[in-house]
Amino acid sequence: MARSEARGAAASRDAADPLRALRGRFVLDDTVYLDGNSLGALPRDVPERLAGVLAREWGELRIRSWNESGWWTAPERVGELIAPLVGAAPGQVVVGDSTSVNVFKALVGAVRLAGPDRDEILVDAATFPTDGYVAASVGRMTGHAVRPVPVERMPAEAGPRTAAVLANHVDYRTGELYDLPAVTAAAHDAGALAVWDLCHSAGALPVELDAWGVDLAVGCTYKYLNGGPGSPAFLYLRAAHQERFDSPLPGWNSHADPFAMEPRHTPAAGVARGRVGTPEILSLLALESALGVWEGVDLAAVRAKSLALTDFFIERLAAELPPGVDAGPITPIEHARRGSQVSVRCPDAEAVHALLVSRGVVGDQRPPDLLRFGFTPLYTTFADAERAAWELGLALGGG
Amino acid sequence: MARSEARGAAASRDAADPLRALRGRFVLDDTVYLDGNSLGALPRDVPERLAGVLAREWGELRIRSWNESGWWTAPERVGELIAPLVGAAPGQVVVGDSTSVNVFKALVGAVRLAGPDRDEILVDAATFPTDGYVAASVGRMTGHAVRPVPVERMPAEAGPRTAAVLANHVDYRTGELYDLPAVTAAAHDAGALAVWDLCHSAGALPVELDAWGVDLAVGCTYKYLNGGPGSPAFLYLRAAHQERFDSPLPGWNSHADPFAMEPRHTPAAGVARGRVGTPEILSLLALESALGVWEGVDLAAVRAKSLALTDFFIERLAAELPPGVDAGPITPIEHARRGSQVSVRCPDAEAVHALLVSRGVVGDQRPPDLLRFGFTPLYTTFADAERAAWELGLALGGG
Repeated sequence: MARSEARGAAASRDAADPLRALRGRFVLDDTVYLDGNSLGALPRDVPERLAGVLAREWGELRIRSWNESGWWTAPERVGELIAPLVGAAPGQVVVGDSTSVNVFKALVGAVRLAGPDRDEILVDAATFPTDGYVAASVGRMTGHAVRPVPVERMPAEAGPRTAAVLANHVDYRTGELYDLPAVTAAAHDAGALAVWDLCHSAGALPVELDAWGVDLAVGCTYKYLNGGPGSPAFLYLRAAHQERFDSPLPGWNSHADPFAMEPRHTPAAGVARGRVGTPEILSLLALESALGVWEGVDLAAVRAKSLALTDFFIERLAAELPPGVDAGPITPIEHARRGSQVSVRCPDAEAVHALLVSRGVVGDQRPPDLLRFGFTPLYTTFADAERAAWELGLALGGG
Repeated sequence: MARSEARGAAASRDAADPLRALRGRFVLDDTVYLDGNSLGALPRDVPERLAGVLAREWGELRIRSWNESGWWTAPERVGELIAPLVGAAPGQVVVGDSTSVNVFKALVGAVRLAGPDRDEILVDAATFPTDGYVAASVGRMTGHAVRPVPVERMPAEAGPRTAAVLANHVDYRTGELYDLPAVTAAAHDAGALAVWDLCHSAGALPVELDAWGVDLAVGCTYKYLNGGPGSPAFLYLRAAHQERFDSPLPGWNSHADPFAMEPRHTPAAGVARGRVGTPEILSLLALESALGVWEGVDLAAVRAKSLALTDFFIERLAAELPPGVDAGPITPIEHARRGSQVSVRCPDAEAVHALLVSRGVVGDQRPPDLLRFGFTPLYTTFADAERAAWELGLALGGG
C-alpha cells in the first residue's frame, strides 16, 4: 500500500468512528500524542471548572466550601464517577492519595483480611516498580514473605500459604493484558485475596471488578482517565470486605465521625474507610471535571476502537519497517492479551524516541530498548496511528 | 472604652502595621475571616498561575512538562520555599502527600532510626486526632507501645525505652504553644528522637528546626501557608538522618533512579527519600504560587503582629463580654505559650458560631464548647480583631 492509500484508509476509519466527536472534548494540536498512557490530554472543560473552584469556592466561600461546595464528600463522589468505568456498583470506589499509597492500603488490608494463617504475598514479577517496592515494605512490616511470580503463573503458584496476590491488569512495559478473571478465580480457589493494579486498564477497556470477584483494586487517574498530572488514585474496596477492611493508614478522614475529634479511631462505614488525610482538592476537582467526558461513553466501543487502532498501527508498522532492521512489536497480537498500547523493541530506542518527538510523534521510551505507543480511544485517530507508523519506519531507515 | 474608641485604636494600629501591604496579596472581602488556621485565604497570584499550568504545561506540553516545566522536581523545589519558614537549611524539606501520610513516614522512620532496643512511642495526649490514629497504627505495625503523654510531661516521661516522641507544636484546640526546644532536648537526653507536627505553627511564628535539633517534622500547608484546600503537606528530614532514613512507603518517586524501573528499591539520596508516588501537581503548583507572598517577609514581624493581634482581641473581648456569662479565652495569656489563635470556651458554642457567621465573623467551632479564632498575620487586621470581639460580646448577650 502506498502511503496515500494508507492515509485514505485512516481517513475512512476516522470518518466512521462512532467515538470521533469525543476528540473535540480535549485540547489537542497536530502533534500525534501517543503518551496518554502516561499523561492523558487536557479535557476542555477543566480550566473553566478549576477557575471557578479558585474564584468562588476557595476565594469567596473559603472554609464554608468544605460543606457548601461538597469538598468533604468529593473523594466518594468522584469515586462514583469512576465506579461504572471499572464495573463497580456504587459505594465501593474512593479517590485520594497516590497509587503507591493505595497499594500500601490495599495490600495491608488484604493480608489482614486473609487472616494470620497465611504468610506469603505473590507479586507480579514484571510489575510496575512501585507496586513491588511497596509490597516489599508491606511484607517487612506484616511479616509476610513476598514472592515475585509472573502473572500467568499465579494460578499455579497460589497455595495454602498465600494471603494475597498483587498483579497488574496490563503490563506497563509490554502492553500485555492479563487474564484477570482467571487469576482472581485461582487466587480464590487457593483461599487468597486478589489485589489488582488497574493503572493501564481503567479507561482503556472494560473492567468488571464486581462480576470478576476482585477483592481490592487500585488505579491511577492521569492516564486513560485524563485527570491531570498526578491526579489522585482510586481504591476499590469490595462491599463484602468493607466492614472488615482494616487500614494501615487510619487518618482522620476515615473516622466514623471526623469532627468529633475523638482520641480513638473508629473506622467509617463503607468505602470512606479507605480515606486517610485531607484530600488535595484542586487536583481532585480537576479530575472530577475531566471525568465528565465519559458520560454516555460505551466501554465496548472504546475497546473496539482501541483494538482497531492498535491493529492498524501494527499492520502499518509491518509495512513500513525497513527490511533487515531488528525491531518490532512485542505486544501480543491476540486481542485477548493486548491492552491499549503497542510496545516496540528497537535498537537505539532513546535516539529513535527523540527523533520521533522532533517529528511530532510523542510516545515514550523505557529502558533498555522499548518504545511505547499508547492509544487513547477517546481522542487518538487512525490518522495518528498511520503517521506514527510512517515516522517510526522512517526513523528506522525506511521510506 | 466606647466602641468608637476601640475602632480608632484598631485603625491606628492597622495604619502602623509594617505588614499591612500584604493583605492586598490576598482575595478578601468584608468578612472578618478568622479561620486561616483551617484554610488560608486565596493569594491573588494563584489563579493566573494555575491557568497557565493548565493551558500551557498540561494542555500544550503534556508529558514533556515533567521535565520541561519542572514538575518532576517540584516536591523538592517547593520544599525549598518552605525551608526558610521553618528554620531549615536547604535540602531537608520535601512536599507531597497528606499530613497523615507524612506522620506515618516520619514516625516509622524515627523508630527505625532509634534502633531495635527501644519499644515505646510517646504521643501528645491532646494531639490532633489524626496523629494519634496514625501513631497507633505505627505502633501496631512496628511493635512499639504507644503511650499518650501531655507534651509538658514528655521531658519527665521520656526514658530508656522511648524510641520517639510525637508532639504538636501548637495545640489545635487550645492554641497553646509548647516548648519545642526543651521537649526536643529532653527527648535527646533520653536517647529518643523528636518528631514534631507543625500544622499550627508553620507560617504563624518563627520555627527553627535546625537550631532546635528537631529530628523529623511534618506540617500542613493549607493553614497559615495559604496553599489551598488540601494542599500537600511537607516533611522535614534532618540532614544528619537522611542517609539512614528508611521509609515505610518506598514508592518509585523515592528511588535513586526512578526511570531505570529497577525491581529493587534503592533509596534516593537526600530528602527525595521522603517522596512516595506521583505528586498531585495542580495542588502542588498552586501551593508554590501561594508561597510567593512570603518573599521578603520577616517572621519576627509576623510573630510580633500575631501577638499584638491576639492580645488586642483578648483585651477587647474582656471589655465586651457581658458580666455573668461563663465564657472566656482558654488560650494562654503568656506570649511564650500562645500560638496564633485564641480559643474561647462558651456555652452553646455551635449556636454562637452560627450567629457569628451570619454576622460576617468566620471562626470555627470544636466540640463540645470551643470557638476558635485564628489570626493570620499576613492578612488579619486589628479592625478584624475588634469587630470579632464586639460581635462575640453581642452574641453572648452584651452590647
